[in-house]
Amino acid sequence: MNQAETLIQALPYIKEYAGKTIVIKYGGHAMLDESLKAATMQDVTLMRYVGLNPILVHGGGPEISEAMQRMGKEPQFVGGLRVTDEETMEIVEMVLTGKTNKNIVAHLNAQGGQAVGLSGKDGSLIQATKETTKGDLGFVGRVAQVNPAIIHTLTEAGYIPVISSVAIGEGGESYNVNADTVAGALAAALQATKLIMMTDVEGIFQDFADKDSLISEMTVSDARQLITDGVVERGMIPKVDACITAVANGVKRAHILDGRLPHALLIEIFTDQGLGTMIK
Amino acid sequence: MNQAETLIQALPYIKEYAGKTIVIKYGGHAMLDESLKAATMQDVTLMRYVGLNPILVHGGGPEISEAMQRMGKEPQFVGGLRVTDEETMEIVEMVLTGKTNKNIVAHLNAQGGQAVGLSGKDGSLIQATKETTKGDLGFVGRVAQVNPAIIHTLTEAGYIPVISSVAIGEGGESYNVNADTVAGALAAALQATKLIMMTDVEGIFQDFADKDSLISEMTVSDARQLITDGVVERGMIPKVDACITAVANGVKRAHILDGRLPHALLIEIFTDQGLGTMIK
Amino acid sequence: MNQAETLIQALPYIKEYAGKTIVIKYGGHAMLDESLKAATMQDVTLMRYVGLNPILVHGGGPEISEAMQRMGKEPQFVGGLRVTDEETMEIVEMVLTGKTNKNIVAHLNAQGGQAVGLSGKDGSLIQATKETTKGDLGFVGRVAQVNPAIIHTLTEAGYIPVISSVAIGEGGESYNVNADTVAGALAAALQATKLIMMTDVEGIFQDFADKDSLISEMTVSDARQLITDGVVERGMIPKVDACITAVANGVKRAHILDGRLPHALLIEIFTDQGLGTMIK
Amino acid sequence: MNQAETLIQALPYIKEYAGKTIVIKYGGHAMLDESLKAATMQDVTLMRYVGLNPILVHGGGPEISEAMQRMGKEPQFVGGLRVTDEETMEIVEMVLTGKTNKNIVAHLNAQGGQAVGLSGKDGSLIQATKETTKGDLGFVGRVAQVNPAIIHTLTEAGYIPVISSVAIGEGGESYNVNADTVAGALAAALQATKLIMMTDVEGIFQDFADKDSLISEMTVSDARQLITDGVVERGMIPKVDACITAVANGVKRAHILDGRLPHALLIEIFTDQGLGTMIK
Amino acid sequence: MNQAETLIQALPYIKEYAGKTIVIKYGGHAMLDESLKAATMQDVTLMRYVGLNPILVHGGGPEISEAMQRMGKEPQFVGGLRVTDEETMEIVEMVLTGKTNKNIVAHLNAQGGQAVGLSGKDGSLIQATKETTKGDLGFVGRVAQVNPAIIHTLTEAGYIPVISSVAIGEGGESYNVNADTVAGALAAALQATKLIMMTDVEGIFQDFADKDSLISEMTVSDARQLITDGVVERGMIPKVDACITAVANGVKRAHILDGRLPHALLIEIFTDQGLGTMIK
Amino acid sequence: MNQAETLIQALPYIKEYAGKTIVIKYGGHAMLDESLKAATMQDVTLMRYVGLNPILVHGGGPEISEAMQRMGKEPQFVGGLRVTDEETMEIVEMVLTGKTNKNIVAHLNAQGGQAVGLSGKDGSLIQATKETTKGDLGFVGRVAQVNPAIIHTLTEAGYIPVISSVAIGEGGESYNVNADTVAGALAAALQATKLIMMTDVEGIFQDFADKDSLISEMTVSDARQLITDGVVERGMIPKVDACITAVANGVKRAHILDGRLPHALLIEIFTDQGLGTMIK
Repeated sequence: MNQAETLIQALPYIKEYAGKTIVIKYGGHAMLDESLKAATMQDVTLMRYVGLNPILVHGGGPEISEAMQRMGKEPQFVGGLRVTDEETMEIVEMVLTGKTNKNIVAHLNAQGGQAVGLSGKDGSLIQATKETTKGDLGFVGRVAQVNPAIIHTLTEAGYIPVISSVAIGEGGESYNVNADTVAGALAAALQATKLIMMTDVEGIFQDFADKDSLISEMTVSDARQLITDGVVERGMIPKVDACITAVANGVKRAHILDGRLPHALLIEIFTDQGLGTMIK
Repeated sequence: MNQAETLIQALPYIKEYAGKTIVIKYGGHAMLDESLKAATMQDVTLMRYVGLNPILVHGGGPEISEAMQRMGKEPQFVGGLRVTDEETMEIVEMVLTGKTNKNIVAHLNAQGGQAVGLSGKDGSLIQATKETTKGDLGFVGRVAQVNPAIIHTLTEAGYIPVISSVAIGEGGESYNVNADTVAGALAAALQATKLIMMTDVEGIFQDFADKDSLISEMTVSDARQLITDGVVERGMIPKVDACITAVANGVKRAHILDGRLPHALLIEIFTDQGLGTMIK
Repeated sequence: MNQAETLIQALPYIKEYAGKTIVIKYGGHAMLDESLKAATMQDVTLMRYVGLNPILVHGGGPEISEAMQRMGKEPQFVGGLRVTDEETMEIVEMVLTGKTNKNIVAHLNAQGGQAVGLSGKDGSLIQATKETTKGDLGFVGRVAQVNPAIIHTLTEAGYIPVISSVAIGEGGESYNVNADTVAGALAAALQATKLIMMTDVEGIFQDFADKDSLISEMTVSDARQLITDGVVERGMIPKVDACITAVANGVKRAHILDGRLPHALLIEIFTDQGLGTMIK
Repeated sequence: MNQAETLIQALPYIKEYAGKTIVIKYGGHAMLDESLKAATMQDVTLMRYVGLNPILVHGGGPEISEAMQRMGKEPQFVGGLRVTDEETMEIVEMVLTGKTNKNIVAHLNAQGGQAVGLSGKDGSLIQATKETTKGDLGFVGRVAQVNPAIIHTLTEAGYIPVISSVAIGEGGESYNVNADTVAGALAAALQATKLIMMTDVEGIFQDFADKDSLISEMTVSDARQLITDGVVERGMIPKVDACITAVANGVKRAHILDGRLPHALLIEIFTDQGLGTMIK
Repeated sequence: MNQAETLIQALPYIKEYAGKTIVIKYGGHAMLDESLKAATMQDVTLMRYVGLNPILVHGGGPEISEAMQRMGKEPQFVGGLRVTDEETMEIVEMVLTGKTNKNIVAHLNAQGGQAVGLSGKDGSLIQATKETTKGDLGFVGRVAQVNPAIIHTLTEAGYIPVISSVAIGEGGESYNVNADTVAGALAAALQATKLIMMTDVEGIFQDFADKDSLISEMTVSDARQLITDGVVERGMIPKVDACITAVANGVKRAHILDGRLPHALLIEIFTDQGLGTMIK
Repeated sequence: MNQAETLIQALPYIKEYAGKTIVIKYGGHAMLDESLKAATMQDVTLMRYVGLNPILVHGGGPEISEAMQRMGKEPQFVGGLRVTDEETMEIVEMVLTGKTNKNIVAHLNAQGGQAVGLSGKDGSLIQATKETTKGDLGFVGRVAQVNPAIIHTLTEAGYIPVISSVAIGEGGESYNVNADTVAGALAAALQATKLIMMTDVEGIFQDFADKDSLISEMTVSDARQLITDGVVERGMIPKVDACITAVANGVKRAHILDGRLPHALLIEIFTDQGLGTMIK
């Protein structure tokens, strides 16, 4: 009976999000820990079955570095961005698209979802140009254009798209693009209802040292101010930037969510309990 | 988190019943008790939102008798069937179609479902002929034909059909038909996946006095034998007969369910816990 | 051959109204007299078969009062509106939706039409709020919103919708709404081509005593003036108001038609002969 | 009111033939007399508007002979068939397809129908081979295959197809085919509900001299017997043969109808009055 | 291998014109010479098969005059326009629609295309009024309206429409309209991507005597100037006017093409080689 | 003009294969040589644009071995099959799906095709079980089931699917499956019109030493006999087996084609010239 009550409590949310697109940036512990991964895959499959339209975007930093080292190549970073020479780009693409992506697809299929993995090359989904503002980092790219036609084709046929953060350049070359940025750009292009960034923190804190200072809700201009003020820093910057891009371009709400909590996605979407930080 | 776990446990059932038709005979305490009624309406609305195709059939004995008495007419029964002269038929139809049916529709709409109430006259859904095997009972009818086209029109557009057990005769006259029988005939005509009879007992007992003798599962021939043996008797006979008709005509499973238990529908459909008696 | 000529004379009208929506307020003698009723049902069925899209709206005053009296309740009116306490509302709903409505449905089906009866509760078709401008009349409502989705679902599938003038309140409660008003609001919401009010008079007269003063055609502002001037009075006011509402909101033409004339609908729509009063 | 009664009497027929295909062989006086022609075009347009699917097939003997004479060529016949050398074939095709056909199309459009004229070449509708059983008659052909795809394309878009009896040979050459035969073959290929042959006689008589001996109804085998017995002779033979072909291949009913009677089509289809001879 | 290279060189053009409408005015030697005719029919069929949407418009001057003479009537011209009395109009229509049109249809079908021939009467495609600016020329008409619905019906079903330059007047009468003008008006109504006028010259020359002065490309205002200056004269005027009409109304490009060159259509559309004169 | 002639010669083949599915096993020199690769990508893009439905399947042996060596792992083969431990499987999947596949996708997109790369995991396209008949080779799999739904979704939306020969096991694990086998199984599941195996030989020779003994055409039973006789040996065995599987399961024709010849695909499909060996 408690089970029934819980299902019933989810009903208003199921109604609210019926047919709506939710872009999820999947990463961090939720991708590395097998039990968290299984829980997340269940969450996404359930979302699809009860009528939502979830879309996963992922990167895969640790796996890339590990593969590079196995091939005797030392990963290098400048300002948080991976220096990506041609050989590195090949490894990035192989790992993200050939390993991480298909691993997610296989897990979703095991839960009963019908997932299809894509890179930004498929259907020319994510077109990029070379990132030049931070010196020559090789094949690091910035999103130039999103062509969401292939996403619509797949979701209308009932599939869950899983997208690796590799983009295609004008000459057909590959680009390594920040997965947070891809998720934000895709949410904007699809006019998603929600963008959810799965991270390894509880949310954004006014003062990171003070666990009581979690900001549960803020506006786009609040978010911009926090970056300017240095409250949001390092790896959190592209995540908050992606949220800002998405919301400024018509996405209703963006969330910074703690992926270390099992079923954080379901709790955020289908219960009264708000988690993490929401930007609107 | 427990909430999330519960949702996840429902996933295999949501997958299994996606797009499937479930005919529910709604009646008894679940219809009379306001709190049980609210719970049942939530259950049906949730079923629709997570992708199932629920169809409600109802009668309304107590309300009919009450209205008759208000009009100074004494209800009469022969062999469990209401003697239905012309005036009684008019009261039956007004109560079932004008009061009970619309009350259910309003409750479903209040939960966010989009319900449409029908009688067997609408779209000539249930055609009946006069029941003659038990003497002249007036406008008591037996189902002659089901024309499910209007049901398909409504469910494909996302509505929940709610059907009162009034049928139409060849000359356009109204017939009072047993609601259990209507539910069984409709489940068969729609080739439903499940027929659920909501009752006020826990199920069928081998020996009604022995609460440990609940039959959790039986075949159509078992069910027939129980009727022959007199184990199934009185008001339970048309319910079991409806189950037999449905299963014999292609419905996968029929259930006798205890509607006194809140959310019995959800528990039966979306959890591992089997309730009542299942005929297959 | 005369028959053939008559059919041919209808051709220009059949072409003109092909696929067009005609909302018909059905009432008065055309509903009470069996032979007029049969003729009207034939008219509506023919309209549907030759490609028009007729929609019936009905009230049912006399039947309500009669049922109330049978239940020992004395009907009361204030300013032409029925005082509607909870018990009266229940009787109103039972009679309109459970008796009058299904009777019309059965008659249309007998003519070969496929009719589906609805109240304003079905699919939340007619939403109302309490009418408060004329004192506390109980559950007398005014139309707050029309949700015509269910009408489109039914008419696209070939059905003739028949709608009783019972509306749904925000809390799911029933409201007794003037059927003329419902017809006008529905015609406006559906952007109907015509609204036809079936009445028991020949039309609107400049001077009711002078049978030669029938107004065969007038504008919305003429109609408003006639109300101001008291030429249109009593029961005719809501009819003319409904016509004004409809035409002011985009309905091409509204008609006050004499339902005592057999086949008045067909004559108005399919012949050169104009009947009654037309507002445009 | 009489007008209304007439429309109502047509209702059962409108229902019966809704969406049904009626192939009409148009010819004789109904094509030569301007007033009969106008009446027939009205009949066909009305049929389309009330939901039937009429298809016209025509020949045009007298116009062909007249055009030949204007070109200084003497028409020649062997066994009722026109000897058709290459030059004659060109004249046949120009007259039937360029004059007669477009004249019918223009008349239908003037009545408000949307007609499209075709010859058997368009969309390779009627493929023929050389008729060799009666000696060398030149480009006289027999129907080898009907490709009705173009007819379906046009009727589904609401057009009335008008088809001249010119067929296409394997090498793209034109063939002069009997229009009665084309009508029969087309009715069979389209699985029409009715084939109607418009002629200049009242029907088939047991004894042509005895006006009381009209056969109002007969079977295919009766019809075959009448040909064998010589009761059906000369120009009537291909008409009856076409009826036999049609009915033997699944067409419900074939009619020999007197086209000299104005609106014979409407009377036959929409009234209780049976005209001419029906073969079933 | 050369064959393969040629196919590959056509690829960018096939991509560019996929799904695009190309209106072709077919005439001159390309219509008179059997081998050129066969080549053109192949070109049009290929266009359809690789995904373009070709539409043919044709006149047929020489055949008309020949037929008139066979009927003992002397063709007369005023200012390049055929004096068209009633008898002449009948001959024009028979020849264009009954002979020339069906001949083209048969040739396209022989190549594997599925062609359907129309005159401006079919589906009221081309409506005309009497041309009065050059004196009374009888049934010479000017385009008043184009109703392209029938063209869309045919092309969406995969057919190649072939249209003769006969138009319909308000009273259903036939009009003889310049085929160049029809092509231009049709291209405008269909918002075609290209209009191609097949002629018997290499294009428009700045100085007709100087074969090096071919104008390969010009604007609409250039074209207007050339007419004003008398550089474009006689029969070329309606062709250039049709190009101007088309481009001024949204057609991307219009071409004056030399139909004496085999496969001029394919060369113009599918190769880098520009032929004739292009107006944009 | 020669260009035009070549296009025209392709017309019968374009007609024949319109809308037909062609499965192409892409491999060997055509994949390794940049100029041959470009030519093949042009061929496939052209096929799609002229209305065929090409589907590419690829393996990628040399790239896998190279990547393994870079990671310090020595490739091992038993009976022509790669011994595939867990680490090797990960490298196989990364190379095939993350590098080779996306490289083909990018090349097709550069030609204007819209390609989408898939592995057998996406949409559970290719399900495999462990290959056990040749000893324990680790994650070497055999095709158990093909679920072509995702292929239909993509091709109906105009995409060119590119499929790597990695399959999914019951537990979601990856399997390395022979690409020839995948191509054969997919052609059978899709009921393709043609299966084309691109190889580095001219075809199958009766006697490999005798270049005049090329077998241009043979039956399935001939093919089986050649394997039994040892004429077909080593790497050619899975190719011929795949052809046999395909043809035995309803594929019309299978081809062994020499991919070293530029545009071999176009020549085979669009010209009269037959290349290689055809099995039917």
